[in-house]
Amino acid sequence: MTTLRASRARAPLAALSDTVGLLYGADWNPEQWHPEVWHDDVALMRDAGVNVVTVGVFSWATLEPRPGRFELDWLDRVIDLATEHGILVDLATPTASPPPWLGVLWPSARAVTAEGVRMSHGSRNHFCPSSPHYRERALSVVRVLAARYGAHPGVRMWHVGNEYGQVCWCEHCAHAFRRWLRARYGGLEELNRAWGTAFWSQRYDEWAHVVPPRAAPYLVNPTQTLDHRRFASDQLLALYLEQRDVIAEHAPGVPVTTNLMGFHRPTDYWRWAPHLDVVADDVYGDPAEPEDVVRVALSHDLARGLAGGGPWMVMEQAAGAVSWRPHNVPKTTAQLRLDSLRAIARGADGSCFFQWRASVVGAERFHSALVPHAGPDTALHRAVAAHGAELVRLREVVGTRVAARVALVFDWSSWWAAEEPGGPSTRLRVLPQVLAYYRPLWSRGVGVDVVPPGADLDAYDLVVAPQLFLVDDAHVPGLRRVVERGGVLLVGPFSGVVDRDGHVRRGRFPVPFADLVGGSGEEQVPLPPAGVRVRSELLGDVAVHDWAERLRVDDGEALATVEGGDLDGCPLVLRRRHDGGGEGWYVGALLAQDGVDAVVAACLAAAGVAGPAGVHAGPDVEVVRRGDVVFCLNASDGPRAVELDGAAGTWHDLLSGADVADRVPLAAHGALALIERTS
Amino acid sequence: MTTLRASRARAPLAALSDTVGLLYGADWNPEQWHPEVWHDDVALMRDAGVNVVTVGVFSWATLEPRPGRFELDWLDRVIDLATEHGILVDLATPTASPPPWLGVLWPSARAVTAEGVRMSHGSRNHFCPSSPHYRERALSVVRVLAARYGAHPGVRMWHVGNEYGQVCWCEHCAHAFRRWLRARYGGLEELNRAWGTAFWSQRYDEWAHVVPPRAAPYLVNPTQTLDHRRFASDQLLALYLEQRDVIAEHAPGVPVTTNLMGFHRPTDYWRWAPHLDVVADDVYGDPAEPEDVVRVALSHDLARGLAGGGPWMVMEQAAGAVSWRPHNVPKTTAQLRLDSLRAIARGADGSCFFQWRASVVGAERFHSALVPHAGPDTALHRAVAAHGAELVRLREVVGTRVAARVALVFDWSSWWAAEEPGGPSTRLRVLPQVLAYYRPLWSRGVGVDVVPPGADLDAYDLVVAPQLFLVDDAHVPGLRRVVERGGVLLVGPFSGVVDRDGHVRRGRFPVPFADLVGGSGEEQVPLPPAGVRVRSELLGDVAVHDWAERLRVDDGEALATVEGGDLDGCPLVLRRRHDGGGEGWYVGALLAQDGVDAVVAACLAAAGVAGPAGVHAGPDVEVVRRGDVVFCLNASDGPRAVELDGAAGTWHDLLSGADVADRVPLAAHGALALIERTS
Amino acid sequence: MTTLRASRARAPLAALSDTVGLLYGADWNPEQWHPEVWHDDVALMRDAGVNVVTVGVFSWATLEPRPGRFELDWLDRVIDLATEHGILVDLATPTASPPPWLGVLWPSARAVTAEGVRMSHGSRNHFCPSSPHYRERALSVVRVLAARYGAHPGVRMWHVGNEYGQVCWCEHCAHAFRRWLRARYGGLEELNRAWGTAFWSQRYDEWAHVVPPRAAPYLVNPTQTLDHRRFASDQLLALYLEQRDVIAEHAPGVPVTTNLMGFHRPTDYWRWAPHLDVVADDVYGDPAEPEDVVRVALSHDLARGLAGGGPWMVMEQAAGAVSWRPHNVPKTTAQLRLDSLRAIARGADGSCFFQWRASVVGAERFHSALVPHAGPDTALHRAVAAHGAELVRLREVVGTRVAARVALVFDWSSWWAAEEPGGPSTRLRVLPQVLAYYRPLWSRGVGVDVVPPGADLDAYDLVVAPQLFLVDDAHVPGLRRVVERGGVLLVGPFSGVVDRDGHVRRGRFPVPFADLVGGSGEEQVPLPPAGVRVRSELLGDVAVHDWAERLRVDDGEALATVEGGDLDGCPLVLRRRHDGGGEGWYVGALLAQDGVDAVVAACLAAAGVAGPAGVHAGPDVEVVRRGDVVFCLNASDGPRAVELDGAAGTWHDLLSGADVADRVPLAAHGALALIERTS
Repeated sequence: MTTLRASRARAPLAALSDTVGLLYGADWNPEQWHPEVWHDDVALMRDAGVNVVTVGVFSWATLEPRPGRFELDWLDRVIDLATEHGILVDLATPTASPPPWLGVLWPSARAVTAEGVRMSHGSRNHFCPSSPHYRERALSVVRVLAARYGAHPGVRMWHVGNEYGQVCWCEHCAHAFRRWLRARYGGLEELNRAWGTAFWSQRYDEWAHVVPPRAAPYLVNPTQTLDHRRFASDQLLALYLEQRDVIAEHAPGVPVTTNLMGFHRPTDYWRWAPHLDVVADDVYGDPAEPEDVVRVALSHDLARGLAGGGPWMVMEQAAGAVSWRPHNVPKTTAQLRLDSLRAIARGADGSCFFQWRASVVGAERFHSALVPHAGPDTALHRAVAAHGAELVRLREVVGTRVAARVALVFDWSSWWAAEEPGGPSTRLRVLPQVLAYYRPLWSRGVGVDVVPPGADLDAYDLVVAPQLFLVDDAHVPGLRRVVERGGVLLVGPFSGVVDRDGHVRRGRFPVPFADLVGGSGEEQVPLPPAGVRVRSELLGDVAVHDWAERLRVDDGEALATVEGGDLDGCPLVLRRRHDGGGEGWYVGALLAQDGVDAVVAACLAAAGVAGPAGVHAGPDVEVVRRGDVVFCLNASDGPRAVELDGAAGTWHDLLSGADVADRVPLAAHGALALIERTS
Repeated sequence: MTTLRASRARAPLAALSDTVGLLYGADWNPEQWHPEVWHDDVALMRDAGVNVVTVGVFSWATLEPRPGRFELDWLDRVIDLATEHGILVDLATPTASPPPWLGVLWPSARAVTAEGVRMSHGSRNHFCPSSPHYRERALSVVRVLAARYGAHPGVRMWHVGNEYGQVCWCEHCAHAFRRWLRARYGGLEELNRAWGTAFWSQRYDEWAHVVPPRAAPYLVNPTQTLDHRRFASDQLLALYLEQRDVIAEHAPGVPVTTNLMGFHRPTDYWRWAPHLDVVADDVYGDPAEPEDVVRVALSHDLARGLAGGGPWMVMEQAAGAVSWRPHNVPKTTAQLRLDSLRAIARGADGSCFFQWRASVVGAERFHSALVPHAGPDTALHRAVAAHGAELVRLREVVGTRVAARVALVFDWSSWWAAEEPGGPSTRLRVLPQVLAYYRPLWSRGVGVDVVPPGADLDAYDLVVAPQLFLVDDAHVPGLRRVVERGGVLLVGPFSGVVDRDGHVRRGRFPVPFADLVGGSGEEQVPLPPAGVRVRSELLGDVAVHDWAERLRVDDGEALATVEGGDLDGCPLVLRRRHDGGGEGWYVGALLAQDGVDAVVAACLAAAGVAGPAGVHAGPDVEVVRRGDVVFCLNASDGPRAVELDGAAGTWHDLLSGADVADRVPLAAHGALALIERTS
Repeated sequence: MTTLRASRARAPLAALSDTVGLLYGADWNPEQWHPEVWHDDVALMRDAGVNVVTVGVFSWATLEPRPGRFELDWLDRVIDLATEHGILVDLATPTASPPPWLGVLWPSARAVTAEGVRMSHGSRNHFCPSSPHYRERALSVVRVLAARYGAHPGVRMWHVGNEYGQVCWCEHCAHAFRRWLRARYGGLEELNRAWGTAFWSQRYDEWAHVVPPRAAPYLVNPTQTLDHRRFASDQLLALYLEQRDVIAEHAPGVPVTTNLMGFHRPTDYWRWAPHLDVVADDVYGDPAEPEDVVRVALSHDLARGLAGGGPWMVMEQAAGAVSWRPHNVPKTTAQLRLDSLRAIARGADGSCFFQWRASVVGAERFHSALVPHAGPDTALHRAVAAHGAELVRLREVVGTRVAARVALVFDWSSWWAAEEPGGPSTRLRVLPQVLAYYRPLWSRGVGVDVVPPGADLDAYDLVVAPQLFLVDDAHVPGLRRVVERGGVLLVGPFSGVVDRDGHVRRGRFPVPFADLVGGSGEEQVPLPPAGVRVRSELLGDVAVHDWAERLRVDDGEALATVEGGDLDGCPLVLRRRHDGGGEGWYVGALLAQDGVDAVVAACLAAAGVAGPAGVHAGPDVEVVRRGDVVFCLNASDGPRAVELDGAAGTWHDLLSGADVADRVPLAAHGALALIERTS
């Protein structure tokens, strides 16, 4: 398992950004347009500062209109045209969406739901990841492309598939699942132990009887579903790897990637990251949700974590509206720019969009693009070009890192396991908890790395595990070491409950950490609507809703205690101070946001961590230090200001090119990229 | 394509109404009852003024209990009995609900869902419209009936099937869909162009690969689904036509129809109407929804539109409650009468019900009927008889027309296309928009014809297209001509966006009309919850919710403008006055109802159109002029009044038989049918 | 059909309770644990007062890991261990959850949904009840167990399967359904009559064409679905019976049961009860719903009714939280105790739990147990042991009966039929109505027997039929006799509407009782949101919501009358006083709870029935007399008090062992078990 510190440097991306600076571009789908339009496109791209395009993502049926008959001339012309105009090409394998003929000729190449419904073509991603026919045909088209373009000087990156995420329950997948389980468990007895098949009479006597968790009358074995999620993610990764290997053979040294999707449930990106030359992320925050900027910032910190702390890129984002929500509020042009800057502030060396020119056909006709249906003489396209111009002024951030002394622990297996049916409450959800603990860090401008539970944590002064339900035994020592070496470990509710097989750890929870936090629990207590009243010097009058735990103090302190009701006197926030300065914290409740803020603030103080020095902004202004540049991003839709320490001439704003000092106004969704002149 | 003005006169209905006056009757299902009850039935019918019954709609299994064995004696007796009592017979083909044996002997005759679930018998309408077995057996029973009763003097109308609406995704239907597509597109290349298969790698290389839009993992090609809806409607129409042809052969000159369902989504009635001898509509407003009377009035205006402006009939309505809603509030007896009068006021020459006698068995046991379970000595049945008596007094409206100088443009293809998944917002719905623009016309007593976009519009002073997302190139000139010849054209939001293939028209929208309305747009803007503030002399302070468009004024005027926020200064209502008096209006927003009212009022004024002269009523009283009769229908559940111009003796009420003048009180749900005496 | 009075005494349960007193125990699933844990278990059981365990419910795959290979040694040891420690064993047949091999080797042994989805293993209860393979293998394992343990002295009860409830729509079940229908109807013509197949052309000409109500495009024949529910319940009962017979052969005299689930929709327990030696019920009230205690009390009265008025037992309840709700609020320890006492107060001679030790694996890991994950040193387990100790002090209630002069009529067929789709309103639900009429009886401490409509009702002074939609002709005389012999019959809305085939009874409703209640109706009137205003001396100002009926007075009295609106003057509560003192009441509306309370109070007064003498408690305190003991259970979460008549020394509390008098305080969820000293 990779960790942030152990991962190799991300040299491949630098090979591009060293050439052109921050990458700026889009998916370009010329197969939808008459070649005349292509020439308009590249001219407009140059005008807009676009320096990279992703080509061919959904072109399989155009490239191979019938099995084995390839038509590649158009793609030659497209790649040459971009190259002639100095635009780097990120060439996609078109394997996300097979042509209709695949699923007609080989019906078993189409995925099947848990209820047994076989998918039809007419949309995209309808293939079965385990289908030998799909895989053979996919590798075939990849081989043709790699052979033809592997050495093309304009093809500077390869993009395998698109947004891997489908899951299938067919017989091919059942077979592959069994193979995966054999590799994991060796023998059936070990599978029976891990899956706890003594419960509900599920003992397996033959491998052939093991199946994916298909439609069943009631709750399904939770370890079976957990392993199926692990398998499904690995199965998609295998697709990526086998295409990657073909490309690597024909295009040695050219980086290969695929576009990730942040906190995307079906895929455990910690397992994917070591195999990606470039971490490329698709980012679709909802402009209708003002709070979504925090979630997006968190996903950027995850992307950077996946990149080992080094540069990454945004592969897709919307310039205006998307078209797959029920109600698609568009970004304003100010938000378009601010969203792009947010990614760069958090370590991205590229900011790309889906897509270059708005489609007039197909299921995404109403997805915005860099060139709208109404053409380039539009507010949106003018903003695109203006942003392209200003990105040149940020070139000095290329390759720099975001310093972080706080780690936020996140794990896909734990996420999956925590939200299986059959838990104490569906109201305790993992991502909202992760966000709740991240929000006070975000609003204070504190750098945070998102890390897996097995990461090397020695560089962090504060480690926060907001909701780490499942903890592998192998990861316990690393987490415990945070406190042992004098750091602060903050653990949120319903953490440390099960082991890697989803077995509840017997004893008082959080079993692996109870001694560190100085107290322990015996019962999860989903709360009635009234919640409970809490007395706390630390938190003040804070609401506890939906979730508490029946805890007791062992050799630590109670920092918040229930008053009245059945839990009267029960501590809900525990702390133990250790010799050597380490502190273990445990929050056994769903606290209202201000309560979480107070806990995190106290932990930051204990760890001696704060935001960038010399820059003071209110809670709506996102402050991030990347390398030597302090980005100030007004996430609100009203005017704000930033106060700067230091004499006039100390601070320079790269975006405006002007010196700034004292109180700097920020328009709604405005931004600064400050650099401190060391006089 | 038929249009209102071009369509032939509806002589067939006159053949009946000339005999008996306004048709009044019900579905009669004697096969559910012992023959003794039949005699009670016809006696009660005569007492209640019933002059027509629809017989045999669901009688297939009784007529043909096993394949090829027909039992028709009972039907002979039923038809003879009605005929002897002077009750006209509308004889149904029983093909809506095949007997169990059909689907057991030929499983492929049962419909299949998009997910592949094959329907079972036990309900109704479970057949596959493309099944050769179903069609063969259906034609067989129709041939038997037509041969036996084609010349029966009592059978005065034929009723094919019932409420056509099912859609099937089976292999038979896939085959028929391909045949339909071949006829539409000729070659595969043209299909690939129309469907935009370059998007998401959907290019078809063989016809055999084309399938209906079955279950898929994500958004399906919107032109594929649009064409599938068109096909599904045409496929049902084909069923109607092939039965109609059999009947026409055996019963030349006897009118043939089927019962339509107003704004029924699966069937494009503009394509059906030319083939119906009589337009017969099923009308099921919800008495629990006071606003539903407006929707029902609109559907009547649609039915009249389908009838080319001539008489039509209500084939089904409820006398009290229906039984298929979750909560079935019954009509009061006053509403029963008022609903019937509403249809007649809007051009109906017949008012029939489902059904004559309440079933005691089956899935519709709790659907009301003209004879309730409790028998004829009930409030409901007494009201039925009283209404039967008063209809005789309205005989002079038979065959007369409703004058209209306003046209409302409505199109099924556009409705379907606008509400496919993948649009900007699900909150902009077509029917609510059509209703919003119809409501101010309804409340002013302004006559409105609902017309298809290809209609001849020359007779209309105002043409309203509330939400015409899809506009066929062929229909553009006719719509433009409204303004060019000096009329007023009012176009609502998200109109003129795509062509007949659902391709977005490139350029500033509404592309085909932008020059007419004097402005144009570049971005659809689904709004956050706060909406936007609008400044307008025309509209006053009106709320804009959920939807706006980024428009600009070209050579027209801004009549409402956004104040503040990202859309600050953006015009939302555009008007251009043309030489020759024509005006083009465009509303690029979802306005609250009072805003729509103000816009429509201004357009009415510009067009010089108003409600019936001499009759003044509040907004709750529906006023409709049909021929020489002005109907005043109190749609509210409180007392209201109507003010009449003119001296005493000017106005006579056909319903009460009394002269009325000045201020005429109207009881809750009361009605007047005024005729002006030209002294 | 059994009735309360006619049923045999429940001697089998006494055979156990005479030995050990009130049964106290749990499901024990040692196959999930290492044998070392078993020894801890039995020691802890003894300490906690546990005297009975249910073993082996889900052990099939452990007992028979592959077809025909049995491994029973572990079960020998488990049973011997319990027996050695004086703990009675209730041995389960493990047939609720077949091993994976069953459904893999015989796919048709897995159940199929109405949509045709075949269930997979991985959960439980996935078998088809009609599968010959399932039934053969199930009987095989039962035979092995019965042969080996039939004569074991420690095995004192047999527990067949678990929570029977699944329904299947496969071909095996279709075949069995036809067989069941042939037995019910004899010939096809009678089936056609009963199912009303003349409606919607559903006439059957061959038995082979009859199918279960599978997925269909619209409402399915309501008698078909009603009969399918009856069949499905009988089919499950057949499974129980064939296993019971095997056991009876090997273990004559040892009681056999299965665990029921109160008002469990799929199973008509009135048909099951005669075949159960012990009525054992699973009880899972929701601690998050304060009102749920009333529902639970009602289900206890049902369980007692199923037991013919004699003792029954709780087979399963939760000690804390369950894990199958979305949000599982746990019981407090006070609620754990109070819930157990509630069952005993209402006639239970046993209080058992699911399960003994909390599982650490499987789908119910987070279901509470008598020994939590955190072990015995927990608040929950301490409460378990304390309650075990106090149950010894209640030994004198063993075998005693709860006296009742009020009967509440409840019927599964009527419940099913009333809630089929296609009724007047989904807002009139059967169980909420039953609860509404039960609540005032509960809050007054009035003993109530829940009885089937065919019960002998002669012993009851008041018979309440809150919503008896379907009434079999055979049951009409018994219900009418209540009034004829001088009792009070109270009938709620939408009762007496259909016969046993679901055919609407023609005439004025409630047809079978209209003359008894002195009035009759002609129309069901689901109400618009405003409801109607009612004038009533009896009820005062009470709200009528969602439902009224168009009634008239015939020769009775109107006790509540609508004021205004379309129903103006319509009576909604009817009463007729008969010679001989009998009274017939009819409520033709959904009254707010206080209206129902007033009606029931008046009926109680008319019948001369009241709660236990000498004990006065507020509405939150549940008072129940069982034998000579008056239980007072504080159902609220605040302190309450009970007032006692009589001098000091009159009343003794068995729970505290103290004499009490005058005003006795009750802590939140506290309890008294009072016995009156007859001085």
